[in-house]
Amino acid sequence: MDIGIGLIGFGTVGTGVVRILQNNADLIEGRLGRRLVLRKIADLDIKRDRGVPIQRDMLTTDAYEVIDDPTVDIVVELIGGIEPAKSFILRALELGKPVVTANKALLAQHGAEIFGKAAEKGIPLGFEASVGGGIPVLKALREGLVANNIEAILGILNGTSNYILTRMTEEGLDFKRALSQAQRLGYAEADPSLDVDGVDAAHKLTILASFAFGTWIDFKRVYVEGIRDISPLDIEFSREFGYRIKLLAIAKRDGGKIELRVHPTMIPEGHLLSQVQGVYNAIYIVGDSVGPTLFYGQGAGSAPTGSAVVSDLVDIVRQGRLLQLPSFAKDRPLKDIEDLRCPYYLRFTAVDRPGVLSKISGILGENDISIASVIQKGRTKRGAVPIVMMTHEAVERNIRRAIEEIDALDVIKDSTKLIRVEALGV
Amino acid sequence: MDIGIGLIGFGTVGTGVVRILQNNADLIEGRLGRRLVLRKIADLDIKRDRGVPIQRDMLTTDAYEVIDDPTVDIVVELIGGIEPAKSFILRALELGKPVVTANKALLAQHGAEIFGKAAEKGIPLGFEASVGGGIPVLKALREGLVANNIEAILGILNGTSNYILTRMTEEGLDFKRALSQAQRLGYAEADPSLDVDGVDAAHKLTILASFAFGTWIDFKRVYVEGIRDISPLDIEFSREFGYRIKLLAIAKRDGGKIELRVHPTMIPEGHLLSQVQGVYNAIYIVGDSVGPTLFYGQGAGSAPTGSAVVSDLVDIVRQGRLLQLPSFAKDRPLKDIEDLRCPYYLRFTAVDRPGVLSKISGILGENDISIASVIQKGRTKRGAVPIVMMTHEAVERNIRRAIEEIDALDVIKDSTKLIRVEALGV
Repeated sequence: MDIGIGLIGFGTVGTGVVRILQNNADLIEGRLGRRLVLRKIADLDIKRDRGVPIQRDMLTTDAYEVIDDPTVDIVVELIGGIEPAKSFILRALELGKPVVTANKALLAQHGAEIFGKAAEKGIPLGFEASVGGGIPVLKALREGLVANNIEAILGILNGTSNYILTRMTEEGLDFKRALSQAQRLGYAEADPSLDVDGVDAAHKLTILASFAFGTWIDFKRVYVEGIRDISPLDIEFSREFGYRIKLLAIAKRDGGKIELRVHPTMIPEGHLLSQVQGVYNAIYIVGDSVGPTLFYGQGAGSAPTGSAVVSDLVDIVRQGRLLQLPSFAKDRPLKDIEDLRCPYYLRFTAVDRPGVLSKISGILGENDISIASVIQKGRTKRGAVPIVMMTHEAVERNIRRAIEEIDALDVIKDSTKLIRVEALGV
Repeated sequence: MDIGIGLIGFGTVGTGVVRILQNNADLIEGRLGRRLVLRKIADLDIKRDRGVPIQRDMLTTDAYEVIDDPTVDIVVELIGGIEPAKSFILRALELGKPVVTANKALLAQHGAEIFGKAAEKGIPLGFEASVGGGIPVLKALREGLVANNIEAILGILNGTSNYILTRMTEEGLDFKRALSQAQRLGYAEADPSLDVDGVDAAHKLTILASFAFGTWIDFKRVYVEGIRDISPLDIEFSREFGYRIKLLAIAKRDGGKIELRVHPTMIPEGHLLSQVQGVYNAIYIVGDSVGPTLFYGQGAGSAPTGSAVVSDLVDIVRQGRLLQLPSFAKDRPLKDIEDLRCPYYLRFTAVDRPGVLSKISGILGENDISIASVIQKGRTKRGAVPIVMMTHEAVERNIRRAIEEIDALDVIKDSTKLIRVEALGV
């Protein structure tokens, strides 16, 4: 018997789903033993030509016509945002219809409620497309690595930011120029804040970490820093130290606590993550049995995200009415960012005068921060020079206090720049 | 209700499985909702201490005591090789017991029979551990990328060969020295032929390609070349051209035909695959919707392979009695290696005399082979010099004929060396 699919949202990803269901219908039927048939599509705009052949009467502007249609067996939500997406999903689950969604913002902020409803009703909810686009990373984490305690997740989860950092690294562009290049190519929105301020990556990290650690992560408690302040100077210095700068989303288990943070991070240039260029995503996952693994691919876009949505449809049909929700712990304490321990890159902007370096290193020493290496470059026009240091592992609280003290010195001409370092193995 | 697990083979991987089932028992029960309980272990050697606590009466030297034990619900086969592994698996399936195996040689050579029996009986058969160790690549291919026509698979599937090539590349060792280093570290067997001659990679490629293309691949028809003939000289030249040499297992769709080959391959040094070092494995998969993806991790070893075995156990319990075998096409023609088209690296060993280069390039031209670049190095002691060329895309048949003609010239002092090139994007 055919499986009826209803689509809410006929944008980029929706069009990708329709194209796959049309072009690869026989292939998927051969693999699944059932045919996935598109029955109804809702979108506010039902006039625009998406370049895929669709019967006129399949389109509606009313999402509930899709959800309530008795020939629709599975509802696919692709409009994004909180409302009305949330109401649509809850309504479908109420009716006993499995749901597939790519909505990371919604799951990161209302995951407990939505998964709770799905579990209560015993209805499957697919969300592979919400993290990493076409990369089957949630499947890998929840099924392939199910035997593992997850020790760490380090992800390049936002293609827009990675594209901008790649252009800045390869061509020496500053942030603004790289951003407008990304906007021209359609890789960044007119308002790029969700992407470049790290919020989108934090949404995805929240979902990954919730399933990795079996506890609902409070999205608002993820420490988030974007890439707007990264300068070509920092990229140049990080290269001299043998590092690349990436916007990493990091989740780690540290004893009973969980560390969750999104920020520009220096990683060794020999590491696979630092080779991930342009709009690509990659997720590095370390399990206690499997060791380090990496999953790489296109993190966004019509066809790749469509691939993930359709894989969820197939899984739901194959596995029937099961919802594989692990037993979630109620409370798992999060680590405060001030308790973080890692090496730091520090760039001071100081007047070029004898004794400055000794003042700075004196304050660092008093704050229990030891220096691994220093680069001091020639004088700039304004008479201030950058002094760049890599520290050994230090505590963020101490780093912040030291920077506050140093920035108060009259020889310091600009606020000190800090980039956290991940000294990854392999 | 607990799920009883029976183990046949208490070697490296078997010990890894036992350790995971013991150490992560609560974690897995929390995720699965059922407890996986080890009931019986068979091995020829039941005396040796594996460093894991096992009750004496759980051990037997008779595999059928495991298979027939009514408290054993799922049978795990980890002895490898064709017989008696095949009989054990068929017997378990006969009894209606799901089977998990890591046996790539068996599945590559008798897959049709074994999967046929499982399908006939409707009994699940897990085999994630047979390819890529702990990397959930078969799951990714069969489930995560289920919506895709698979266009290409390029895999570093043998950790031993990759370790040897890594040492040769990083330290300039020759093959023999790198091999004995690998043997000393336990990365290579006393008889390393299965690994270094490409047979193990071909087994794994057969399994990947069968599921990617929905047709049983005849393992004997995979073109296989190992790494014994790779010299430090070739590694040095490939570096000058901007390439690395890897033992790649390649499966491609080319119109109606399938291309299947395992051989040393030059890949651009900027590509992620060329960054895969040591005993690690990586599989680069290109799908028509998802585009390029990469899956990376430890391809062998006790804990990583154990991780894959236990993930299969969980899947079988979660999904019940389903066997997800796609409809397999009976016949899908394989492409002859002589029809292959790719760029080639050619190293001629010629006397250093005027006119030699023109003779060689003349013969190449007559065979429709055009040259992209040439390196000619200084004279060696024996009076012969290496002349190295990268060709544009050419047909293997023409390359072979040209080499035959060139090697017959009296100015050629040694047989010409050929390495195929993959000009991968990204």
